[in-house]
Amino acid sequence: MHSFKSLSEQFENHFNKRHFPLSPANLYDAAQYILKIGGKRVRPVSVLMACELFNEITDDAYHVATAIELFHNFSLIHDDIMDKAPLRRGMDTVHSKYGESTALLAGDVMLVVAYEEINKIKPSTLHDVLTLFSKTAKEVCEGQQMDMDFENRLEVNLDEYIEMITLKTSVLLAASLQMGAILGGAGKGNQQHLYEFGKNIGISFQIQDDYLDAFGDPDKFGKQIGGDILSNKKTFLLIHALSVATDQQKRDLEQLMSGKDEHKVEKVLQIFKDCNVEEWANSLKKKYADLAIKHLDETAVSEQRKLELKNLTHLLLERNT
Amino acid sequence: MHSFKSLSEQFENHFNKRHFPLSPANLYDAAQYILKIGGKRVRPVSVLMACELFNEITDDAYHVATAIELFHNFSLIHDDIMDKAPLRRGMDTVHSKYGESTALLAGDVMLVVAYEEINKIKPSTLHDVLTLFSKTAKEVCEGQQMDMDFENRLEVNLDEYIEMITLKTSVLLAASLQMGAILGGAGKGNQQHLYEFGKNIGISFQIQDDYLDAFGDPDKFGKQIGGDILSNKKTFLLIHALSVATDQQKRDLEQLMSGKDEHKVEKVLQIFKDCNVEEWANSLKKKYADLAIKHLDETAVSEQRKLELKNLTHLLLERNT
Repeated sequence: MHSFKSLSEQFENHFNKRHFPLSPANLYDAAQYILKIGGKRVRPVSVLMACELFNEITDDAYHVATAIELFHNFSLIHDDIMDKAPLRRGMDTVHSKYGESTALLAGDVMLVVAYEEINKIKPSTLHDVLTLFSKTAKEVCEGQQMDMDFENRLEVNLDEYIEMITLKTSVLLAASLQMGAILGGAGKGNQQHLYEFGKNIGISFQIQDDYLDAFGDPDKFGKQIGGDILSNKKTFLLIHALSVATDQQKRDLEQLMSGKDEHKVEKVLQIFKDCNVEEWANSLKKKYADLAIKHLDETAVSEQRKLELKNLTHLLLERNT
Repeated sequence: MHSFKSLSEQFENHFNKRHFPLSPANLYDAAQYILKIGGKRVRPVSVLMACELFNEITDDAYHVATAIELFHNFSLIHDDIMDKAPLRRGMDTVHSKYGESTALLAGDVMLVVAYEEINKIKPSTLHDVLTLFSKTAKEVCEGQQMDMDFENRLEVNLDEYIEMITLKTSVLLAASLQMGAILGGAGKGNQQHLYEFGKNIGISFQIQDDYLDAFGDPDKFGKQIGGDILSNKKTFLLIHALSVATDQQKRDLEQLMSGKDEHKVEKVLQIFKDCNVEEWANSLKKKYADLAIKHLDETAVSEQRKLELKNLTHLLLERNT
């Protein structure tokens, strides 16, 4: 069994190539550009790890891992257009560098190339992998639409927010793990456990992400603390705070969000603390992490084989310690 | 054998339904909306006709026809965003009605649903149809990129323009016919003849489209005459005129294109006439139509079976008579 780090290196070696024709250069250079920005490659490596849980890592697992990473980058290009984001990981976004029309097309073509990668796998698993891939792709679009819809709504409850986050970010990790399981020859039950394992890690990770944005150590987190608060983003923390706040705290929060108070971040954080948001977030994060581990525990392979996926869980969910 | 008209009605009955889930409503209503704008459905019906050339029309042919029409509408949604087009067939474009972000996502999700339709066909043809579908989808994106690139270039030669038009519009008709042939059980040679038949019809059709925009009867053509001239669009006519014009005619054309002469359309048309653009366009259109028919003639099925595809060719290429 290989560690996440070891498979990351192997995947990177495999993935680090030109995935597109040379011409038209504008289109395909734009598509290739975002792949060079890099990333943790958690999703594609999860395909490999889930496959190895049941079997040797096959060429098909690399094809599907590649498809997943291409799909993820397609969604980043289009999300960045929708969010009008100028930067990603400190570099120009595709549309900042190549213009919106070319970025839109580069995303389109990347989605098509993702499907081409899927079509390289052996016929016996093609239909099942395609079914899961397309179902997941639709859900990711649905999650992005819900996120945009929520921006225009005053109130969003916790269940709705969890559904949005699940679709927008968690199902792709879940599907990556299930596809790896399919390629490893796992039965339906084990496939489903891997899916639920990934889905719940994804939710737990997002709770942690929202938490760290507000309460993290700026040196370790690598982002500006309070960014979500400054941009009035709906997060796990804000949604919970609004649901338990006193009328006065609620009024204060709403006033802070609509105004330009120069101490906005500190004041909002103080209300979060007064509402016990920290403890609540940590316990919710733990709830989903436990659920994830429960599904891994119930997967019918030896404990020894599960070790690296458990290590990955800790790697992903203990960034703040 | 069924006529185009008869299969159009059958396809419309099959296609006229909700293709998407109900929620999130914003996303999927936007996707469904463009399908109601309608269209001639030439591409999906071509799938059915090509299938029937070799065999009975199967359920798989309807799945692929549906996928082709969804793909076509995905490309229309995204092209309209790139072109900032307010109207399509006299109705609001998707982004005018639902906003650019939702239109972008609605296009994305429509492409995914097109792949879902492909995935419904039987395993024995899935790989081949997917391969052709994805290859064609990439080419359509490449054609759109070339079209955008050409807008920023002073000179485009005829070969480049034909390549762009082939990718942007002809390969989808070609692929529709080849997919129908695959599903009908045709061998590689016949598949290739059907592909070339469709590709050359597509090019011939585009020459005719450019011609009618300049020289057509406004009552029959249904569009404003001279629209391409007013918007300085590079067309077969302009590219040829610039390549044969005298230095004086070239200067006049360039001046007309950069200025706001109120008689611009008439003056450009006069130069086109002086350059014999009409005869040239008609002979080029005929060259590609003949090439199309040659490939249909060489397809190894009885003349009787080819009748409806010949009728379709006349229907598409004799709009001005």
